[in-house]
Amino acid sequence: MTAMDSTSGTAPRRHFASDNNAGAHPEILAAIARANQGHVTAYGDDPFTDAARGRFREHFGPQAEAFFVFGGTGANVLGIQAVTLPHQAVICPEGAHIDVDECGAPERFTGCKLLTVPTADGKLRPADIERHLVGIGFEHHVQPRVVSISQTTELGTVYTPDEVRTLAATAHRHDLLLHMDGARLANAAAALNTDLRSLTTEPGVDLLSFGGTKNGLLGAEAVVFLNTPAPAHFKYVRKQGMQLASKMRFLAVQFDALLGGDLWRRNAAHANAKARRLAQAVRNLPGVRVTQKVEANAVFAVIPPRVITPLQQRYHFYVWNERLSEVRWMTAFDTTDEDVDGFVAALRELLA
Amino acid sequence: MTAMDSTSGTAPRRHFASDNNAGAHPEILAAIARANQGHVTAYGDDPFTDAARGRFREHFGPQAEAFFVFGGTGANVLGIQAVTLPHQAVICPEGAHIDVDECGAPERFTGCKLLTVPTADGKLRPADIERHLVGIGFEHHVQPRVVSISQTTELGTVYTPDEVRTLAATAHRHDLLLHMDGARLANAAAALNTDLRSLTTEPGVDLLSFGGTKNGLLGAEAVVFLNTPAPAHFKYVRKQGMQLASKMRFLAVQFDALLGGDLWRRNAAHANAKARRLAQAVRNLPGVRVTQKVEANAVFAVIPPRVITPLQQRYHFYVWNERLSEVRWMTAFDTTDEDVDGFVAALRELLA
Amino acid sequence: MTAMDSTSGTAPRRHFASDNNAGAHPEILAAIARANQGHVTAYGDDPFTDAARGRFREHFGPQAEAFFVFGGTGANVLGIQAVTLPHQAVICPEGAHIDVDECGAPERFTGCKLLTVPTADGKLRPADIERHLVGIGFEHHVQPRVVSISQTTELGTVYTPDEVRTLAATAHRHDLLLHMDGARLANAAAALNTDLRSLTTEPGVDLLSFGGTKNGLLGAEAVVFLNTPAPAHFKYVRKQGMQLASKMRFLAVQFDALLGGDLWRRNAAHANAKARRLAQAVRNLPGVRVTQKVEANAVFAVIPPRVITPLQQRYHFYVWNERLSEVRWMTAFDTTDEDVDGFVAALRELLA
Amino acid sequence: MTAMDSTSGTAPRRHFASDNNAGAHPEILAAIARANQGHVTAYGDDPFTDAARGRFREHFGPQAEAFFVFGGTGANVLGIQAVTLPHQAVICPEGAHIDVDECGAPERFTGCKLLTVPTADGKLRPADIERHLVGIGFEHHVQPRVVSISQTTELGTVYTPDEVRTLAATAHRHDLLLHMDGARLANAAAALNTDLRSLTTEPGVDLLSFGGTKNGLLGAEAVVFLNTPAPAHFKYVRKQGMQLASKMRFLAVQFDALLGGDLWRRNAAHANAKARRLAQAVRNLPGVRVTQKVEANAVFAVIPPRVITPLQQRYHFYVWNERLSEVRWMTAFDTTDEDVDGFVAALRELLA
Repeated sequence: MTAMDSTSGTAPRRHFASDNNAGAHPEILAAIARANQGHVTAYGDDPFTDAARGRFREHFGPQAEAFFVFGGTGANVLGIQAVTLPHQAVICPEGAHIDVDECGAPERFTGCKLLTVPTADGKLRPADIERHLVGIGFEHHVQPRVVSISQTTELGTVYTPDEVRTLAATAHRHDLLLHMDGARLANAAAALNTDLRSLTTEPGVDLLSFGGTKNGLLGAEAVVFLNTPAPAHFKYVRKQGMQLASKMRFLAVQFDALLGGDLWRRNAAHANAKARRLAQAVRNLPGVRVTQKVEANAVFAVIPPRVITPLQQRYHFYVWNERLSEVRWMTAFDTTDEDVDGFVAALRELLA
Repeated sequence: MTAMDSTSGTAPRRHFASDNNAGAHPEILAAIARANQGHVTAYGDDPFTDAARGRFREHFGPQAEAFFVFGGTGANVLGIQAVTLPHQAVICPEGAHIDVDECGAPERFTGCKLLTVPTADGKLRPADIERHLVGIGFEHHVQPRVVSISQTTELGTVYTPDEVRTLAATAHRHDLLLHMDGARLANAAAALNTDLRSLTTEPGVDLLSFGGTKNGLLGAEAVVFLNTPAPAHFKYVRKQGMQLASKMRFLAVQFDALLGGDLWRRNAAHANAKARRLAQAVRNLPGVRVTQKVEANAVFAVIPPRVITPLQQRYHFYVWNERLSEVRWMTAFDTTDEDVDGFVAALRELLA
Repeated sequence: MTAMDSTSGTAPRRHFASDNNAGAHPEILAAIARANQGHVTAYGDDPFTDAARGRFREHFGPQAEAFFVFGGTGANVLGIQAVTLPHQAVICPEGAHIDVDECGAPERFTGCKLLTVPTADGKLRPADIERHLVGIGFEHHVQPRVVSISQTTELGTVYTPDEVRTLAATAHRHDLLLHMDGARLANAAAALNTDLRSLTTEPGVDLLSFGGTKNGLLGAEAVVFLNTPAPAHFKYVRKQGMQLASKMRFLAVQFDALLGGDLWRRNAAHANAKARRLAQAVRNLPGVRVTQKVEANAVFAVIPPRVITPLQQRYHFYVWNERLSEVRWMTAFDTTDEDVDGFVAALRELLA
Repeated sequence: MTAMDSTSGTAPRRHFASDNNAGAHPEILAAIARANQGHVTAYGDDPFTDAARGRFREHFGPQAEAFFVFGGTGANVLGIQAVTLPHQAVICPEGAHIDVDECGAPERFTGCKLLTVPTADGKLRPADIERHLVGIGFEHHVQPRVVSISQTTELGTVYTPDEVRTLAATAHRHDLLLHMDGARLANAAAALNTDLRSLTTEPGVDLLSFGGTKNGLLGAEAVVFLNTPAPAHFKYVRKQGMQLASKMRFLAVQFDALLGGDLWRRNAAHANAKARRLAQAVRNLPGVRVTQKVEANAVFAVIPPRVITPLQQRYHFYVWNERLSEVRWMTAFDTTDEDVDGFVAALRELLA
């Protein structure tokens, strides 16, 4: 990976590597600037944090308790730690962010083992949960306690409210909690044209990692307790877990700006629309095969190996599966039609 | 602790609770806004991060390797983990930030035990190190590996370069590394009118937690390897340690702005000057006894118990030692003469 | 699981649940009694421990360094911890003892993630290693460092020296170490009629958990460094890892007795022979299908579901896979021909 | 430390280094031999373990739940882990076994910080507990949850039942649990001529590490829940904590033999009597000053530096405090009058 052309003389260009390659939405920076007045108590005992916590109650229901943290790995690890003991286990799809993108942090810091299930589309099914319900009560085995799903999934697909409801029911029937890694929850809600609650609290998600960074924040995530109460000791978990910001107002105010109006949906819907535009444009190109449903802001496609490197020299993106010549293209809140069209033109040219 | 008056109608006021109750310096916000252009690779492979790492080499010497993290606890824990194994130990003053303000994170995540020494002024002496050099090679005992000092100390005092040099020599003679928790290193350098290198790399500090948040950043800290090389695996330590920012440019650019010119020194010198002004003004008030040397941006004082609560109703600050009626007043980069004078007037009035 | 008939009036009977359901070989108790003379220094600085460490050098080569521990889980965890950092990973077959029978201790205490591969016979192949060599150098991914195999496998099969050599070469080519969980290494050596070195040090095993308990000891295991030196700090790993026995002589003398003559081979060969006898007798029974090669002291078989419970009422054994109606029968150093024949008669009767 | 003369031609001699330098009492070996009959279910589901657990109920009350483990460090760590979360803390005397003799295992595996208090005689007082009750509810501070005392103390002194009761009351008043490291509880009970319950369950000890190894066992310890129930998940804590013996009967039967009759008291009273004999004989020797009350089986004394090494060449013992020329002499269940008298004669000769 190399730095992109943002420092060259040309106008900055949006790439397709990841939604976290984007910057922050201007409204977020404006909110930060507005909060930058005088002294407030550090570590979250301030009016900005109160307000932002209120936004989460508006969106997720009055019982929702949100705790702001620095990053997504921290959100996942702290949330899971809050509801588990080290001999327990987390059932999740193979390739989940907690499984392959957090450098083993979940296992190391919670002690819990991850029990994974291969999936074709990134989505867990009830039978996948039941497959791991063996050795219950047997002291030699880790004991499943949490089911973790990602919304949107790592493959850009989206769980419907009914699918979430079925998973929650299955989990609860076996005394498990349902955790949702919602790093891109906004994209899922925009895709389904629902509010946030209909995808989380209502269908039974107990515990949510709510992502802001990939949806236009400067950098902030939240651990949100929905259908399970936040343990009284969670504040210590966050502090000991190295995720307590001293100047908390600057994390909180980002969420206030994101969730106070419809910025969360605007940003997500925009990114989703650009992915659809991209998918539509490439779908019929010779040698290109889109491999996953394009439901949110990711396009997975198999393309001829020979075009990958030349295309990467013009636009940054990742090879997802080298063996299959499968690539991932992601759009962001700031992707423009011109970015998409320029990219498609470059691809078409290389394919010719 | 309660939120302060920043949301009331009156002009925002600077308090004396902590330098992390201040906001961000306007130049920092401006730098963030400038970096908010187009896409760059996430996680630090971007030109802003390269530039900021270069700033650390300018200030600390060509071998300095800086890694940016979210917070101070993370910086301390990751730095110590980088150079220790779990059966080892860290010698530090009783009351060090790692000892009492990080909710046990250092022990939990490094495995290392802290071996503490009581001090009158927050400063460790060579004999304090040697006191803990027992049971070396004995498998039942933890094995000291790191000496950790804070600059400035938790009591607002400052180590001279010679003091640091002597501690480093003592540590190295016993095959220990010297770690500096430099959450307020800038204040120390401003106090001594030295550059940063003269307090760290030159006298032999191996490993530094460099603080930005308390010196006017929005929020960013750095683990800096000075006289010991960064282990090749440190990038994994940071990621697994939940301290790797995806939009790294926004952490990095803050350091670029802080260290690129003299903002670091202006901010620190300003805070120090306000503490001196405060100390001078209260020193001769009846019933007030300043208890530590005022070398940087903290004033510790014993005041009559009866005035504490009424004073706190007007200005926020912490009681340091309830039994002794000792309080701590801290100044920040944004404290004004009016803030100080208003505070002193309030105190004088209550004492009368 | 229920206690068996050892306290009833009838003569004690050997069951087929596990080789750790057996007691200790009389020569082991005799050795313990002989060592029970006067005072010796605790924690292993004694002549019995010296002698036992020498036995390991005789069997595994002059560079072999053995450390005695209480149990098998401790041996695996400490050995792996000795050669890894928490961001690294261990490649092993799905269903390995470290994967499913140690309640997550390896992940919790080493921090390392286990990367598993499904196998039909419990044996890892070189391609299984290579499948997990992705994301090397990528900080978001755990980094493989150890390949772990069990000898005999959890399915009673045995790696040949050549198979071990190929795995070791593959591991070493990718800068990985080869760990062997040798809880039943003696059974493998007896099965192949080799010495211990030919299965371990010679073909390139770096690190061994050597099992004694399942081969007739009262209770003792060893971490043995073969082709990688014991780290200088391993004594601290053992102590901090809660595996340092104060009356070490009583662990050590068991190994001296086991390895000083041919007791290790006698016990293992005896158990293997009884498993062969059992397999041969049941192989042609109607409704019985032996599912794995019977190479050591375990017989895996599918039997009609209706006979399982009645058979378990007479002899203790475990159902391995309920869905497949697959059971596991294990023999031990003390299993007699009468035990086997009585068991077979009972099975035949129930099948009729 | 060097191995002692047990392998030389002379009759084995008892030294004064530690009670864990002794072997096992013959009645213990006999009990192990009796249990070595046939197969029983591994991991504790056997009649021997049932019987031993019953012995603990006889001695400590019907609610006592005992779990057998390999060693004392394991007992302390697992017991504390069972009742804490990683952000909590344990208050104990400086120099407690958990503080200085377990290589940091308590911190590493429980996550809890130890909050220590210096003492003159190894005994904690109520004020020592209260000194650490600061920062309660403050997320930056670890939260005290357990008070841990050793009976007998590391300095050979003994808490009376009233002293324990007062500590328990203080702990409970502040919502803390009282843990007792009873590695030498039998010696305390013998010294005070009480039963075991009067020193533990009755005065309010919640959680006990019961020591067997130092009182004549081959090697076994127990975690015993007295006034707090064993958490339902404790069996997983033990297994994951690498302290679950497969041939559990051999641990259990040792406790059955120790506690079934009066062997526990005979062994402890014997050791205590020999320490008294030793203390009485040396007390009036010129240059010898006994520094702690000799209440159990340890004698602490200052002796002239010049005699230490020559005396150690004849009898093994440890220097406790090199600076003070203070040594520790411990007696065991097998120490004879001849051992004591020979040792005193040697000391007298060297002093002359």
